[in-house]
Amino acid sequence: MDTQPSRPDVIRARIAKLRDAMRHHGLTAYVVPSADPHLSEYLPERWKGREWLSGFTGSVGTLIVTADQAGLWADSRYWVQAEAELAGSGIALMKIPSAMSALHIDWLAGNLAPGAIVGAAGETLGLAGARALEQALSSKGMALHTDLDLLEQIWSDRPGLPSQQIYEHLPPHAPISRAQKLAQIRESMRTLGADWHFISTLDDIAWIFNLRGADVSYNPVFVAHALIGPERATLYLADGKVPDTVLQALSRDKVDIASYQQAPVALADLPASTQLLLDPRRITLGLRQQVQPGIEVVESINPSTFAKSRKTDTEAAHIRKAMEQDGAALCEFFAWLEQNLGKKRITELTIDEQITAARARQPGFVSPSFGTIAAFNANGAMPHYHATTESHAVIEGNGLLLIDSGGQYLNGTTDITRVVPVGIPSTEQKRDFTLVLKGVIALSGTRFPRGTKGPMLDAIARAPIWSEGIDFGHGTGHGVGYFLNVHEGPQVISCYAMPEPHTAMEPGMITSIEPGIYRPGRWGIRIENLVLNVQSGITEFGEFLEFETLTLCPIDTRCIDLSLLRADETAKLNAYHAVVCERLTPYLSGDALAWLQKRTQPI
Amino acid sequence: MDTQPSRPDVIRARIAKLRDAMRHHGLTAYVVPSADPHLSEYLPERWKGREWLSGFTGSVGTLIVTADQAGLWADSRYWVQAEAELAGSGIALMKIPSAMSALHIDWLAGNLAPGAIVGAAGETLGLAGARALEQALSSKGMALHTDLDLLEQIWSDRPGLPSQQIYEHLPPHAPISRAQKLAQIRESMRTLGADWHFISTLDDIAWIFNLRGADVSYNPVFVAHALIGPERATLYLADGKVPDTVLQALSRDKVDIASYQQAPVALADLPASTQLLLDPRRITLGLRQQVQPGIEVVESINPSTFAKSRKTDTEAAHIRKAMEQDGAALCEFFAWLEQNLGKKRITELTIDEQITAARARQPGFVSPSFGTIAAFNANGAMPHYHATTESHAVIEGNGLLLIDSGGQYLNGTTDITRVVPVGIPSTEQKRDFTLVLKGVIALSGTRFPRGTKGPMLDAIARAPIWSEGIDFGHGTGHGVGYFLNVHEGPQVISCYAMPEPHTAMEPGMITSIEPGIYRPGRWGIRIENLVLNVQSGITEFGEFLEFETLTLCPIDTRCIDLSLLRADETAKLNAYHAVVCERLTPYLSGDALAWLQKRTQPI
Repeated sequence: MDTQPSRPDVIRARIAKLRDAMRHHGLTAYVVPSADPHLSEYLPERWKGREWLSGFTGSVGTLIVTADQAGLWADSRYWVQAEAELAGSGIALMKIPSAMSALHIDWLAGNLAPGAIVGAAGETLGLAGARALEQALSSKGMALHTDLDLLEQIWSDRPGLPSQQIYEHLPPHAPISRAQKLAQIRESMRTLGADWHFISTLDDIAWIFNLRGADVSYNPVFVAHALIGPERATLYLADGKVPDTVLQALSRDKVDIASYQQAPVALADLPASTQLLLDPRRITLGLRQQVQPGIEVVESINPSTFAKSRKTDTEAAHIRKAMEQDGAALCEFFAWLEQNLGKKRITELTIDEQITAARARQPGFVSPSFGTIAAFNANGAMPHYHATTESHAVIEGNGLLLIDSGGQYLNGTTDITRVVPVGIPSTEQKRDFTLVLKGVIALSGTRFPRGTKGPMLDAIARAPIWSEGIDFGHGTGHGVGYFLNVHEGPQVISCYAMPEPHTAMEPGMITSIEPGIYRPGRWGIRIENLVLNVQSGITEFGEFLEFETLTLCPIDTRCIDLSLLRADETAKLNAYHAVVCERLTPYLSGDALAWLQKRTQPI
Repeated sequence: MDTQPSRPDVIRARIAKLRDAMRHHGLTAYVVPSADPHLSEYLPERWKGREWLSGFTGSVGTLIVTADQAGLWADSRYWVQAEAELAGSGIALMKIPSAMSALHIDWLAGNLAPGAIVGAAGETLGLAGARALEQALSSKGMALHTDLDLLEQIWSDRPGLPSQQIYEHLPPHAPISRAQKLAQIRESMRTLGADWHFISTLDDIAWIFNLRGADVSYNPVFVAHALIGPERATLYLADGKVPDTVLQALSRDKVDIASYQQAPVALADLPASTQLLLDPRRITLGLRQQVQPGIEVVESINPSTFAKSRKTDTEAAHIRKAMEQDGAALCEFFAWLEQNLGKKRITELTIDEQITAARARQPGFVSPSFGTIAAFNANGAMPHYHATTESHAVIEGNGLLLIDSGGQYLNGTTDITRVVPVGIPSTEQKRDFTLVLKGVIALSGTRFPRGTKGPMLDAIARAPIWSEGIDFGHGTGHGVGYFLNVHEGPQVISCYAMPEPHTAMEPGMITSIEPGIYRPGRWGIRIENLVLNVQSGITEFGEFLEFETLTLCPIDTRCIDLSLLRADETAKLNAYHAVVCERLTPYLSGDALAWLQKRTQPI
């Protein structure tokens, strides 16, 4: 006899406990976002409170609980999953158009009565979002209380801070020393008129201090805050994370270590008349509220966010090598796949295993850079699909197999999507594939003035797709870090983003180009390369940039409808394949080399 | 003996009078923008105070005067002109990057001492700009006083309100009646939760009431404010502007007339608890301040600004006819030009006369829609060049002649730029021309999802120009009214604009496509067509739009470097010329017809 309570019952019990706590503190509603104190994309277990409380395991969603209602606000990527996971829990799925939507704020302002008190943990509220929430509530005579972390009260077995050890990112792969980076940040601080600078974002901290960790999946970061002063800097981390050798290296660079819990205290203890640099988009309300009235706050984007986006020539050279290794691993994988398709039982999960194994054979490989998306036919139509042991497709019959994967190497971060035919792709599939390819070719070949805002380039990739009455619901490209986060700004190529100053394209930035076509229930196509912004001459009209395609892997020409390609497009594809063949050949032999040669034949 | 004081002396005396008045009122600085109470592009004489006070006759610029300094903030279009006109006046030219720049605000905040009091006439301060100014000043401990119109005190012969009579825009050219439009506006007001709506922008007022006037150059509008209530509407205009027949027609539609000066009074007298709709970008601070505290202000874009941008099918049919007439007039002009070049003395001014005369022969012609730009060689490199009797070029030798002109017809507003060869254009000129043409062809042929933000399309026209390391410093396209303003939003195709919701492309909108290449001191090229957003099918991905090119006039193929055009581009150009020839032929005979046939030959 099974004595475990059912999953819906567990969730109902947790929500009931939350309501008890809300009543005790006089709260009308409680908001639990998907966020941690570092506003990370991937959350440490400790901050997966929305998941614990609602049962919904998707990565983005906001839970709101009132005395008699509970709703989870999620965008279309998660509707199917959320419906299933929320079933029987009493939590309603509230569908929103995109992850950026603030409809839950409208719901609170529109559905609660004046005088209502909304609670949330300030520790996990982004400052910008919190300001919007507070304003919406106060305009309706409601209040926001952010000093109550009710999860802390009701989540008895809440996980602690991640305890993985950190390590140094060393030369040659880290060509700029920690001391140089700190000097560079302090120079930016001076320019902005600040003598102190507090940083919460994990990629910024990892970059500045040339440190890496394994506290979350896929991103080689560690949970910490940092405070940089005129002379010394301090890292706030959980105890026991810093090996002695690292401690000594940090000490030589005048970097101190303090406990994680000391971070807000240090912020509160800053001497009066300090000028403190804070990035309002990269800090939580909870930490912002620690800053005392005597402090002059300078609000600006973190200088490291700009600095790390502009890879140096040395870093670019390392990344080119990482791309060769990654391309070689993919050739090995694809050669294996072609040989075994139809012979062995291959599922979407097998693909993830094989591709990760191929990467893991490369020197410097650390981990995948995100969860592999291997999606066959209809599954490919869901841009954020992930096969699970419970639900995955077998690769058989005819159709298209979409594989979006990437690796973290000490010498760079990769992210690539390819679509390969299984059996015989249909005419319509080939047409869609060719349109996406035309989008990739068009944008990859675009020359543009330095400083062009990334969002302004989005339409160039879309135009060939639009021409057939087709569109896709995600941005065309995201920035990528250097052995850091695979999604890393400040630049972005997306019609869904505003072309604000921080999105300006500068030399050394790495961005993905990844248009797609998704036919729900049928198939999905996406082709993704990473490109580097490189100088393209100075004319009387100013400085120009162009894209160097970094990613090296054949684009399967069997999926192309040649009648749709113009001569200049075919020539560009052939030129790309010639480069791919030339640069990957030294890494390959046997079947993988034969596969490379076959798949890079000119068309 | 000339007893007139010199121009610099006149300006110095006026500035001295202003300083006396500033002292009298305790002002540290006084700001005079280029603006009227309607935030118009073209100012009635009465509101050309910045010009009167500074001597600078350019259309955009801000004058700031302190006790010992005076500066005029102007963008690069005006630097040459401003240097000349300000010489000897004691007013410094302050160069700014674009007309949208707010650097004069930074200057005030950065150069005045805390406690400073800055004055400006609230009557001519746009609300949005005034808010930015006030915030910048108050953050530095300075104050903004907007209740003092010092020009009124020192400009003894200041012109009065324009006195031209208004007239009705009647069927068939105005297919939607005034009553229908008022009903439509009131419906939008209800949706926004407003029972009253105050409007200051002259194009909005002209459109809603189907009235036109001649109070400013080029735009067929009249100076008025309007207040729309639940049952009746009121127009506030200078006395004597409304003929009896118009008065009766308005009265039938429950529209009352009141004197211009009553507008702020009416706003101040609105009954308490009224919900008043105001467009914060389309009203002045002075009027906004009339609104009493008991009134609930609903801030939103004027509903008419959206409504008039979406031309109806009947309006579009009228516009197509206007384009045929305009094209026919241009053929007559160009035939004349080709026949007489090298035989008669032709200057840039002659061109303006001839082109306007050709348009004036067309039925329904009212006026040019802006000051003709006829610019030969180096003059063409100045995008806003205007020939004057003092300074203009003779059309002779070799090179390129740029002509940007347009007409106001009862059945539509036109705006077209063509470049024609004089003698033999150089290889480089042909290359530039062909690149601009490629930009026009690329964007004109773009299909895009309904609701795409106009600014997002800008890069499609630029990409072929960028590819050669060239760029141009203005937007690619502006919206155009229907027998109304030639620059009329809300949509715009410009990388200099933000892709905000109001810039979404909707069916019926008319926009220009006008990329260019400007080589200072050498030549300028711009090719401009107007395009209409038309339906392009509904697919599983949503509703799509495409551009119908409205403008009908040959693009001179003698300026094309054929080696730079792809086959698909040549085919599109030939198809356009076939349409131009077919649709203009019925309007032409003799030399003009022969010219049309010759210049629309396929290449």
